[in-house]
Formats: sequence, structure tokens, C-alpha cells
Amino acid sequence: MNFAARTLNKEIPIPLYYQLKEILLEEIKKSEPGTSLPTELELCEHFDISRPTVRQAINELVVEGYLTRMKGKGTFIAEPKIQQDFLIVLKSFGEEMQEKGLVPATKVLGVEKTVCDEKISAALNIPPGSEVIKLTRLRFADNVPIVLVVTFLPFDKLPDILSKDFENDSLYHIIEKEYGYKIERAKRTLEARIATEEAKLLEIKKGDPIQFIQTIAYLDDGTPIEFSLAEYRGDKSEFTFELKK
Amino acid sequence: MNFAARTLNKEIPIPLYYQLKEILLEEIKKSEPGTSLPTELELCEHFDISRPTVRQAINELVVEGYLTRMKGKGTFIAEPKIQQDFLIVLKSFGEEMQEKGLVPATKVLGVEKTVCDEKISAALNIPPGSEVIKLTRLRFADNVPIVLVVTFLPFDKLPDILSKDFENDSLYHIIEKEYGYKIERAKRTLEARIATEEAKLLEIKKGDPIQFIQTIAYLDDGTPIEFSLAEYRGDKSEFTFELKK
Repeated sequence: MNFAARTLNKEIPIPLYYQLKEILLEEIKKSEPGTSLPTELELCEHFDISRPTVRQAINELVVEGYLTRMKGKGTFIAEPKIQQDFLIVLKSFGEEMQEKGLVPATKVLGVEKTVCDEKISAALNIPPGSEVIKLTRLRFADNVPIVLVVTFLPFDKLPDILSKDFENDSLYHIIEKEYGYKIERAKRTLEARIATEEAKLLEIKKGDPIQFIQTIAYLDDGTPIEFSLAEYRGDKSEFTFELKK
Repeated sequence: MNFAARTLNKEIPIPLYYQLKEILLEEIKKSEPGTSLPTELELCEHFDISRPTVRQAINELVVEGYLTRMKGKGTFIAEPKIQQDFLIVLKSFGEEMQEKGLVPATKVLGVEKTVCDEKISAALNIPPGSEVIKLTRLRFADNVPIVLVVTFLPFDKLPDILSKDFENDSLYHIIEKEYGYKIERAKRTLEARIATEEAKLLEIKKGDPIQFIQTIAYLDDGTPIEFSLAEYRGDKSEFTFELKK
């Protein structure tokens, strides 16, 4: 990053921190992710402004996801968030990542038969205590963990599913190709949350933001076939879609 | 809440914390928001289980939004989140809240003419430095702050808009009825973030989760007419929608 030719204008009514932020943003857009920012002190000296002013500009860029702070190491240009079309078309994580030019990978952390509690039974429209398959997967893009997904599947509709390969095949593909079902639609609910226990698996800190997305997918005859609870890293994911009036 | 008749079953393979969680959830669903939970110690004694077991059940219910902890006061049944159809139909905050049976209110924190930076100019498709109106509103449901919205509007397309009443009329209504435009569609981007400076206005703590939603609304001829940055309280909002395969 090269600020040598840049100065702030103290004569105009635009706040100094805001002028600095705009300059930093221009430079960020020209630089590679991972590039380190000059120190706060260097920026203070070069632009002849106070430390709180520099800090405010940097803070806003951190909150907006352009910069990332690493303790004891400095401030760096952040990797851009993955723009996911998750809200527009119902497609698999693998398809979505491949379209973005990222290499998807899935690690199965657990797959077991269990009985469903009240919440799962309501979502899948089966009696409480029915047998369900609980599938826990950690999903990566370019080797970075992006989302932890816990999926519940009605066992009586998907016998033998415990033996399937969820690391190399998509769940929707398995449900449609191996069982002959047709998935038609899904209902999704999004909530912003704070990471707790799952932080370690996602390689973030407790207290970092999480996009929590619950999905119920339905077959063409209206039967719920999947109930998933997904925790997306907030620093890596944004969800874009269009709607009509 | 009445647990007198309830016991855990130590003979079955369902973890004790999970059994307790299910019992608490049943009671929560029968009780009013604001009702206080028995103390951890009372629950330990009644169910004859350890403190970490009780804590795990309560923690999960806090994370899932069923319970809320108040420092020094105890644990209480949380208000349910407002289910917003924000992602399905393009309607005003006021309409949305009224349909949910909540009383909407809007406080205008600022409305001013300013010049647009790079980000706003890209969103509104106007040259950097163009005049824009910056409108900052805090929006309430039943007197609780729900969302802080900063909106940028292209001034040349909406002359005289500084004089409009944004507390008692919806922005979309003003744009359509007073200027004769037709808003056709909007593009939205969702990100999970952590509250910083805006926490105070939203009556939450720094570090609490925020659903950050950017909207660009377009007229029927494709002109961008609104760019908004909205910060929804994560503890109060969930966004539901359906999608087809």
C-alpha cells in the first residue's frame, strides 16, 4: 500500500477519519487480501492526525469486513466474504462453492440414528420419539471452514442412509438419485447469533458473529425430508437475493 | 413454572442435560415471557443433578433464544423473536409490524444533504460526490427498538424530500405517492455482525449479535432509488422465506 502522495484536507467539512477511511478503502481495493496495513502510528504521522482519528477509520473498516485485526501481528486486508445465492436457488453447498471458483470439501463429524425431540418432530412432521438420522458436517471452501451443519432426516423415509458417503456426494443428490424423491422447495429462517461451542470447529473465537440458518426441505408431495441447523461464519459469508414488490 | 411432578430418567441413554432441556422447553412454552426461571441450585436439587448439567441445558436455551439472562437478576423466559417476511415481499417496516399485531413507531435521528462516497455512488449508480440525502431512523415495535436504518437517496431524483415527514409516513409511500415513481424490486444482502457503537441506540450491549442488511431498491425503469444499511437486533429478529428448487 502506498500513501506517500495522499493527504487529508483539513479545510473541508468532511471529518478527517472519514477522509482517511476513503483513502484506505481505495488502497484496499487495489491490494491483495493478506497485505498488512501500516501501523496506527505510521498513519498518524503521515497524515498528521490523532490516534483516535486513525482508530475510528480502521475500526469502521474492520466492522465492514474490509480489514481484519490479528492480535500482536497487526491489521490486514481481509479476504472478501463469499457471496452466497443460498437464498435464491435451492442448490447444494458444493455446487454453490464451485460456481464461485472455490474448492468445496465436507468432513462428516458424525452420523447416527437417534430419536427426535419436540422441535425436530415439529419440523419433520413426525411423532416425537420417531427415529431420525442425525448427520453433522463441517464444510470448507478452499480449506477454510465456512459452515457447521447438523441435519435431521426421517429414518423411515430414508432407510439405509447411514451407509451413504456424505463426504463425496451431496445430500440432495443422494435423496433424489438413490431414493427417487423429488425435493421441491425449502423454508429458511435466518438469525444473527454469537458463536459459542462451535467456534473452535469453525476456527473463530467465541463471541464472533454467526449466521444461523434453519432449513426445512419439502418433497413435491409436501412431506418434509430434511431439517438442518447451519452455523455460517459471519466473517466469511454474506447472503444476497432479490425480491419483487 | 411448575416442575414438582417432573423427574429425569437416569436409566435411558438420553443425556440428562437434554432431558432437562426438553422439560424446561415444555414449561417455557406454557409460560409468559418475562417469567423467571428457578435458580440453577433449585434445579440441581429438584432434579438431583450436577450444576454443569443444569448450566448446559440453560445455556443451550439461551443460545436458542428461549431464555435470557439478566446480570444479577436471574434467568427469564425471553420475548419471542419477530418473524419478519422482509425477504419475501417488499413492504414497509410499518406494514410488516402491523400485520404481526405490533405497534410500529419511527424516530428520525437525522436527515441531511451530503455528498456520496464511493460505496454509495456505486450502489445508487451516480457519480462520487453527487448530492444525496442521508436519513437515519430508529424503528420500534411495541416501544422496543428493533432496527437502526441509515438510508441514502439520490437528491436530484427526490427534490424537496428533506421536508417530508418520515416519522408518520413510510419512505416507499412518499417515493411512490409524492414523486410518482414506481418501486419494482430490491436487492438485499444479509450479514451477521457484532454490535459496536449502535448498541446503545438499540438498547443492547456491544458484542451482541446484529443482522446487518443492505438494500438497494430499484424503480420500474431500473434506476436505483434507495440504498439502506439496516442493523436489526439479533435477539429480536428472525427472517423467514421460502425458495423453490
